[in-house]
Amino acid sequence: MSVTAPAGAPARALVCRNCGAEYPLIAQNACYECFGPLEVGYHDDVLRAVTREQIESGPDNIWRYAPLLPAGQDPATRVTVNPGMTPLIRADALAAELGMKTLWVKDDSANPTHSFKDRVVSVALSAAKGLGFTRFACASTGNLANSVAAHGARAGVPTIVFIPYDLEQNKVVTSAVYAGDVVAIEGSYDDVNRLCSELTETDEFEDTAFVNVNVRPYYAEGSKTLGYEVAEQLGWRIPEQVVIPMASGELLTKVDKAFSELIDVGLVPDSSWRVFGAQSAGCNPIATALHADTDQITPVKPTGIAKSLNIGDPAAGPYALEAVRRTNGWMDYVNDDEIRAGIQLLARTTGVFAETAGGVTVAVLKKLVESGKLDPDAETVVYNTGEGLKTIDAVSAQVGPTHTVAPNLKAVRAAGLLG
Amino acid sequence: MSVTAPAGAPARALVCRNCGAEYPLIAQNACYECFGPLEVGYHDDVLRAVTREQIESGPDNIWRYAPLLPAGQDPATRVTVNPGMTPLIRADALAAELGMKTLWVKDDSANPTHSFKDRVVSVALSAAKGLGFTRFACASTGNLANSVAAHGARAGVPTIVFIPYDLEQNKVVTSAVYAGDVVAIEGSYDDVNRLCSELTETDEFEDTAFVNVNVRPYYAEGSKTLGYEVAEQLGWRIPEQVVIPMASGELLTKVDKAFSELIDVGLVPDSSWRVFGAQSAGCNPIATALHADTDQITPVKPTGIAKSLNIGDPAAGPYALEAVRRTNGWMDYVNDDEIRAGIQLLARTTGVFAETAGGVTVAVLKKLVESGKLDPDAETVVYNTGEGLKTIDAVSAQVGPTHTVAPNLKAVRAAGLLG
Repeated sequence: MSVTAPAGAPARALVCRNCGAEYPLIAQNACYECFGPLEVGYHDDVLRAVTREQIESGPDNIWRYAPLLPAGQDPATRVTVNPGMTPLIRADALAAELGMKTLWVKDDSANPTHSFKDRVVSVALSAAKGLGFTRFACASTGNLANSVAAHGARAGVPTIVFIPYDLEQNKVVTSAVYAGDVVAIEGSYDDVNRLCSELTETDEFEDTAFVNVNVRPYYAEGSKTLGYEVAEQLGWRIPEQVVIPMASGELLTKVDKAFSELIDVGLVPDSSWRVFGAQSAGCNPIATALHADTDQITPVKPTGIAKSLNIGDPAAGPYALEAVRRTNGWMDYVNDDEIRAGIQLLARTTGVFAETAGGVTVAVLKKLVESGKLDPDAETVVYNTGEGLKTIDAVSAQVGPTHTVAPNLKAVRAAGLLG
Repeated sequence: MSVTAPAGAPARALVCRNCGAEYPLIAQNACYECFGPLEVGYHDDVLRAVTREQIESGPDNIWRYAPLLPAGQDPATRVTVNPGMTPLIRADALAAELGMKTLWVKDDSANPTHSFKDRVVSVALSAAKGLGFTRFACASTGNLANSVAAHGARAGVPTIVFIPYDLEQNKVVTSAVYAGDVVAIEGSYDDVNRLCSELTETDEFEDTAFVNVNVRPYYAEGSKTLGYEVAEQLGWRIPEQVVIPMASGELLTKVDKAFSELIDVGLVPDSSWRVFGAQSAGCNPIATALHADTDQITPVKPTGIAKSLNIGDPAAGPYALEAVRRTNGWMDYVNDDEIRAGIQLLARTTGVFAETAGGVTVAVLKKLVESGKLDPDAETVVYNTGEGLKTIDAVSAQVGPTHTVAPNLKAVRAAGLLG
């Protein structure tokens, strides 16, 4: 199967991130030469012709950036719940608590299935449809399964999502309610991922696009929109610092790539930026490698409450290390108590209720300020990639009613509410 | 306290819905003459000067309609999480299952705190700020508390929300995480509401705006945006039929008011529409009055899983009856099993995961088609007002993993996934 790119479409080829070998725009995610991961390459001249006006006149979702994406240029070809253009929220109260000057929260819990995964799934499945696939699938830590299942229901295409058996119940139900197949695997996410790679090689799954396996190059490009949007929402400029959660590490590398592209094609002024990565203490292989000043990422067995980030063998880890080193950023990690405190800090100061991944990122932001790794006077964007309701158990023991009283004034007075 | 309306502001006075008596734009919700509810009245000439172009050039949220609202004209005066412009989703697969021709889902779970309440809270609190209030409060069945607490956190204003003690845990946590006061009342919502009315009369709560009590006239106007948006999203025209959930009944009356206003001020062509109301069997006082052909609404003690609709003594019930009768619509109600089926039907056919209130509305839509009360050939909009994650327990016993297998191909084959 191969994409028949329409005339003027921006994508040109799949390009190996390691050795530069090129392939047509097919369903393939690893280089036959060196086994390196494949990435979408573009026609430079097509990208350079894109204007701010063209983007601004587009829809209020990721498809305004279709001229910079590998699929979905024609609205009729999209498989999508129309995610994107989520709020960029000025966070003055949070900045003040952290001793920072200018801080923004990019709140991707506002997407249709309430995580940034809707972006990558919309791009992957639009490409997959063009490639002729008739079933959608994924290996997921939860949010991705929610998104694939919802996309399939919207599009009327069967789905089969693979998840670790011990996921948060809210994420399981929010996948299963769409009535596709939900396969719980008695193992870790890394086991699920390995199994899905094997399944793509079977006859029975020949018709199946695994969004983050066989169509991964297209999938990964969807994350660029989290860079494009922040730049556009800031008035077409790149922030000085960004703090991004890391699971596979792919999101971080793609936001970094988005910033480079915007400068290359002339949509924003040239400027420098620093990229910071956030992990949990229960799953910190990329940050640990950075701290040890090595290129060698040692896989771990993930633990802890930030399940959506629990990828022990992170595929894009080396590229995340490269981006952070190149931009003079840093990575750090936080434990479960710090994650819970991060969720509550963000909620209390901004009105944004994040899932554990957002708690990780805010808590790491705090740590980076305290350690002096991040400049508190430089404009910073912190990414919240998911919704607190999906990981409600993370905080349900911490917060609840502050008072419980009978329904009369006397009881209210006795509770101290009337002084 | 009174609003100092800026020159050119659309709101003119508070007007009694029963006797027409007028009051200045103060914090008051009942008529001193006849105890009827007060509603915001506007300067007709100011409304008539509003153009489509003016609205379309506004922000992609409810504030594009500020020229038609009682507060928030000046962005600096807003207390808001910027809700609105939620998706209007073409629901062809759902229409086909129901034997309908043209059906849309207005999905208000896409708001920042994932219910339509963000609309009314943003308008109420923007008015409340202008009135000088320094604390925000509400009587809530859950979603309203979530929204008030989040608005307070965003604005840096203290909040105190009052809820029935037996709410869904997800809604309690999603209120408490913002760190304001959460008061659980050992009684029904109607008890909570009565208590809050009493509290507004106490010295200790003199500084407190209860969004749905003492500033209710402003609050209620926020629901008009759910009518405006649908009309604008359809290309500036009014749909032939709308199906709307009813708790107090206010939302239904305000969507109806919005349609009338749009015609009156010349923003849409004149056309007729029919309004349909949805309740649960556990709390159906308005629908029961319609079915009994009476104006007398007999309060009930609510039961059942659609807790966000469980208002046994619905304040706007008489006005909802009037709107439904005037437009030749109808009301109906469904039981808990039908509600669960409604949630699953909507999810499976549209990719939208609704809370129990949305399940009520979709199940009532189905019933209205089956009973012939609603015309399946007329263009219809069904409103989903909240998010499935908030009432996850409603379906968590119904849906879950379809398979649970060990992480290897052999196990996958044994489970029948490889044929």
